[in-house]
Amino acid sequence: MEYLKCSAQELEREYDALMCRFKEEKSKGLSLNMARGKPGKEQLDLSLEMLDVINSKSEFVGEDGLDIRNYGILHGIDESRKMFGEILEVPANSVMVGGCSSLNMMFDAISCMMTKPIVEGCKPWYEVPDRKFLCPVPGYDRHFGITEYYGFEMIPIPMDENGPDMDMIEQLVAEDESIKGIWCVPKYSNPTGITYSDDTVRRFAALKPKAKDFRIIWDNAYCIHDITDTPDKLLNIVDECKKTGNIDLPIQFCSTSKITFPGAGVAAMSASSNNMRVFANRYSYQIISYDKLNMLRHVRYFGNYKGLMEHMKKHKAVLRPKFDIVLNTLEQELKPTATAKWTNPNGGYFVSVDVLEGTASRVVALCREAGVVLTGAGATYPLGKDPHDSNIRIAPTFPPNHELELAMDIFCTCAKLAACEKLLNK
Amino acid sequence: MEYLKCSAQELEREYDALMCRFKEEKSKGLSLNMARGKPGKEQLDLSLEMLDVINSKSEFVGEDGLDIRNYGILHGIDESRKMFGEILEVPANSVMVGGCSSLNMMFDAISCMMTKPIVEGCKPWYEVPDRKFLCPVPGYDRHFGITEYYGFEMIPIPMDENGPDMDMIEQLVAEDESIKGIWCVPKYSNPTGITYSDDTVRRFAALKPKAKDFRIIWDNAYCIHDITDTPDKLLNIVDECKKTGNIDLPIQFCSTSKITFPGAGVAAMSASSNNMRVFANRYSYQIISYDKLNMLRHVRYFGNYKGLMEHMKKHKAVLRPKFDIVLNTLEQELKPTATAKWTNPNGGYFVSVDVLEGTASRVVALCREAGVVLTGAGATYPLGKDPHDSNIRIAPTFPPNHELELAMDIFCTCAKLAACEKLLNK
Repeated sequence: MEYLKCSAQELEREYDALMCRFKEEKSKGLSLNMARGKPGKEQLDLSLEMLDVINSKSEFVGEDGLDIRNYGILHGIDESRKMFGEILEVPANSVMVGGCSSLNMMFDAISCMMTKPIVEGCKPWYEVPDRKFLCPVPGYDRHFGITEYYGFEMIPIPMDENGPDMDMIEQLVAEDESIKGIWCVPKYSNPTGITYSDDTVRRFAALKPKAKDFRIIWDNAYCIHDITDTPDKLLNIVDECKKTGNIDLPIQFCSTSKITFPGAGVAAMSASSNNMRVFANRYSYQIISYDKLNMLRHVRYFGNYKGLMEHMKKHKAVLRPKFDIVLNTLEQELKPTATAKWTNPNGGYFVSVDVLEGTASRVVALCREAGVVLTGAGATYPLGKDPHDSNIRIAPTFPPNHELELAMDIFCTCAKLAACEKLLNK
Repeated sequence: MEYLKCSAQELEREYDALMCRFKEEKSKGLSLNMARGKPGKEQLDLSLEMLDVINSKSEFVGEDGLDIRNYGILHGIDESRKMFGEILEVPANSVMVGGCSSLNMMFDAISCMMTKPIVEGCKPWYEVPDRKFLCPVPGYDRHFGITEYYGFEMIPIPMDENGPDMDMIEQLVAEDESIKGIWCVPKYSNPTGITYSDDTVRRFAALKPKAKDFRIIWDNAYCIHDITDTPDKLLNIVDECKKTGNIDLPIQFCSTSKITFPGAGVAAMSASSNNMRVFANRYSYQIISYDKLNMLRHVRYFGNYKGLMEHMKKHKAVLRPKFDIVLNTLEQELKPTATAKWTNPNGGYFVSVDVLEGTASRVVALCREAGVVLTGAGATYPLGKDPHDSNIRIAPTFPPNHELELAMDIFCTCAKLAACEKLLNK
């Protein structure tokens, strides 16, 4: 039944039935978690044998000709730079392989530009009191956190199925020199799961920002994380930027956090030589070298890019049923009510659900009451403020399938309950 | 023969003999390196079996009760915090275990204080244009590099066998609010190898800096790195600071870089809860969690603190002969000339040699000509400027013993040659 077409009496009856179901679900005393994009145990087990690859009998001289157990090789070992070059479709010599976290590398990059200009002659961002950052919404809370930490005013940019609103971006960056960058998850975007259209990527590459030190943070976190047989294809922004002469615009990031072990994977960045000069200078003061044993462990385990892609198929096999559970439950439970919209992604880690406007916080609170922890309502917006109180990020990867089914049932009950409450002014 | 007591003719004869020897050594076409404090291959092999400890058959639930293969536990796993607590003689809950590099953690700490005040109400250091940092000399070039990168004026503080000149430090910090900190390697100091006396530590703990946000960077890099049977004992600065009420003054760092694998070890910091609140806040934006698999690998390999100390004995057995080669050669070759002084440390990674004033650069250049790379002359001073052009850091750990013998012979030849040149005004 479409809620908006229901009479008050019909809605009251629906409300009573839902409340009954809610109480029943709550009485089970569940403790389920769909809050974060954490791989599930089954996925972690996929990479177990990687831990056997480097052992006391290993050969430790890599392609650089050095004993990788010792200090040195600031940019990461050659074989790892090559592999990340293949993942990001960029030359290996534009890649720096860092620690275990691409978030940390992004934080370092912003931190670097806060106190040292990325373009000679520009002011470090710390000295731009009204500094601003563009934040496509809904987006990744930890991205927004970094620019919040560094005191940026964050301007939300609406997303649709082609990516962020390019008209708005083009106009804003052309006019305002204090806009210094934009957060992007261009493929299987967090949380909507959409991939930027070719036109969007081309328009990014053709941006003419007033700020010479405007940078696109291109967080390609899910570039090889397909979950269907019709994966999205993202246009290569570096190639496009070559055509427009804007090679210094994008800075790319990715990691193996959701390929091998979250927090114990390997992260990388790729940037133009002008950008890399500034970042590498900082890194040369910051650290002697990152964990090359873990780099070698990863490269030797996958063997080559083909081996890596074979490994990704195993993740897909684990994740496909989880996304099916989410999408099928939404389809069955929420679609008839016509109060919610959601995405049907070909990859990534999330399903983004827009529940009835003004009810997202209530849905999250109800779910928590019934033992299901969701990402906080509003988390996908800068400062945690969703002006429509509508978006909820569903992270289906962590719970086992039977728990996910329970959690999604509860989610739908709560979404419908909150919608009834709202429509009935309860 | 004491050079300063020699006649010109005697010195000329010595010079000719040395030049002969230098040419002979040069003709061997050697390529030896005593530049950095890198462990040698034999030391790296000591930890090989650690690489077998974590494998596909391992149990991955740690004391925190979580699967450590997944995201989470920002401060590091409990068992690792405990072990670093024992190493630094501080409570485990004051410890944060970070990535693979204590240098990186120090960089992060300074970086943090550049843009966020460590004490509420103080200005972030970026906003203190005449910010200054105290640099005990000779000291660690990478420390000085961090404060150079962040635009500090660096004030050299002379070191003696008890540590840095405390009279000078007390006076400077009491007068100048723009002095924000001091770099310290309190035990087996880099490069002099001395350990701060109890009195020095007590005076550090009793400092009354004008700047409320003055911090002591206590880089306890060599705290368990003894090389003799009469190890130094460092007074616990945290305990002393408790007595003086200065608990927020010190921030401690250490790592396993020179215990297991440089660059693939584990690093940690320890600080008061006030300090840690500021750093942990930053880390909560910077990263989700560090490599917990590597933390577990280390803890399980050593078993406990006793196991760790047993492991350190193996390092000592490898390093003792290397230091003996250096010290014996200096004793035999340089002592008679009475032109140089050096330290005889009970631990750490270096021997600090003061050659005849005004000849250090020349000695390093001559060594390089003869195929021996040393740490650059002046590297142990801020901005690489040794006002006496006298200090050279000898790093004996990396070369195999037979190479070290050759390198030290060449070093002594070059030191004497440069001294003769200087005294003869050549």
